[in-house]
Amino acid sequence: MDRLTIIKVGGKVVEEPESLKALLDQFSKVSGNKILVHGGGRTATIIAGKLGIETKMVDGRRITDAEMLEVVTMVYGGLVNKRIVAGLQARNCNAIGLTGADLDLIRAKKRPVKDIDYGFVGDVDDVNTRELRLLLNENVIPVIAPLTHDGKGNLLNTNADTIASELATELSNHFSVYLFYCFEKRGVLLNPNDESTVIHDLDLTLFNKYKKEGIISAGMIPKLDNGFRAKQKGVKEVLITNPENIATGRGTRLV
Amino acid sequence: MDRLTIIKVGGKVVEEPESLKALLDQFSKVSGNKILVHGGGRTATIIAGKLGIETKMVDGRRITDAEMLEVVTMVYGGLVNKRIVAGLQARNCNAIGLTGADLDLIRAKKRPVKDIDYGFVGDVDDVNTRELRLLLNENVIPVIAPLTHDGKGNLLNTNADTIASELATELSNHFSVYLFYCFEKRGVLLNPNDESTVIHDLDLTLFNKYKKEGIISAGMIPKLDNGFRAKQKGVKEVLITNPENIATGRGTRLV
Repeated sequence: MDRLTIIKVGGKVVEEPESLKALLDQFSKVSGNKILVHGGGRTATIIAGKLGIETKMVDGRRITDAEMLEVVTMVYGGLVNKRIVAGLQARNCNAIGLTGADLDLIRAKKRPVKDIDYGFVGDVDDVNTRELRLLLNENVIPVIAPLTHDGKGNLLNTNADTIASELATELSNHFSVYLFYCFEKRGVLLNPNDESTVIHDLDLTLFNKYKKEGIISAGMIPKLDNGFRAKQKGVKEVLITNPENIATGRGTRLV
Repeated sequence: MDRLTIIKVGGKVVEEPESLKALLDQFSKVSGNKILVHGGGRTATIIAGKLGIETKMVDGRRITDAEMLEVVTMVYGGLVNKRIVAGLQARNCNAIGLTGADLDLIRAKKRPVKDIDYGFVGDVDDVNTRELRLLLNENVIPVIAPLTHDGKGNLLNTNADTIASELATELSNHFSVYLFYCFEKRGVLLNPNDESTVIHDLDLTLFNKYKKEGIISAGMIPKLDNGFRAKQKGVKEVLITNPENIATGRGTRLV
């Protein structure tokens, strides 16, 4: 099977002009089939603030009411996505920006209200990569915003880490998939303040131990949960790293 | 050659929930290959206003400084485009939202400053429909936002009527193209306040006469200029009408 690299970038990386430029330089050098999945939460929070819409987060997840859904649709699907696409075109990468609604790529269900009403947040139901694979065969580079749809005309906000792992899992039926979670740090750190303490190989036993001990916490837990799930379902390799190490493959490898 | 219908919708049609619903119902019934090109200026003006950014128009064209470019990228490429895509998916139309940057579809040059500095406004240089045609062959329905790019990483704001006529012209090398300009009225009217005065057939001589007499004016002139240019360059049929008459083909026909 052909190799396919899926790179998920979030956090400041795609939202600050300098780090975005560095990322796109790195990403454009990756050979073979590739997909970029991005976030955009910081920009959404800033734009929402300017529009007088308050951002509410629960456990790192955005509460997405009707107004906030408009903001994330604009920011993720428009501003952040199209900037990346234009930036890649300038680097001779024939990029195409997509949400889960485009090509019916990712259908989701509005998350049921239990303790918390997350609003228009979607849990992935179905991934359809038929047309996406045709594009990959034409050397097109999909750039995917963290939005899905419910098939009834509604867009939904879906975590970008989840989108990356769901796509990686489905596409591992057709490609040998390498999934990179890129953020600001060199990998999962034993000491969050010391970049020299990267955990090079992380298995489930160690992950559970570090989780229990509080060494791995906060936003890293759902990312790693997604990563381990993708690995168990056939994704060839999952790596947590920063954009500079996309080329070297250094970082935290899930084993 | 296969038939391809390109429908450009602007004005209130795509921006109010009820008229958008009606449009999508009509559009989803069009048989064969089809493309939707949309505007979104009213929404851009509203969002800009909420963000404290003043909208300046000259001859119906938006002055697009760096801040306004962010707004139109969000609104055209994100909010309006993705709402249409999700709405079409709900009607079993496999839509894909695109700007001119996606798939390197439309390259443009920043308009040179003469009397007026339009800012980040792009005049179309090159239309590349290679991948678009692959998608059309797979029954995918492109939904196109009025943004282009310069190949150097910059997005540009480009008039939606122009985008529709440029696409129609290029695609008439491959398809028998029917270009519909849809807006709120039944066609070009002799009396703007009387919908029964639709001009059914309009040729260049009559257009120039009406223009001189002030019967056709304002925003209609660039639309018709674009339409006549497309017709002269091989587009099979150009019709100015409202969404209700997409099916009947009634309206103003350029001859």
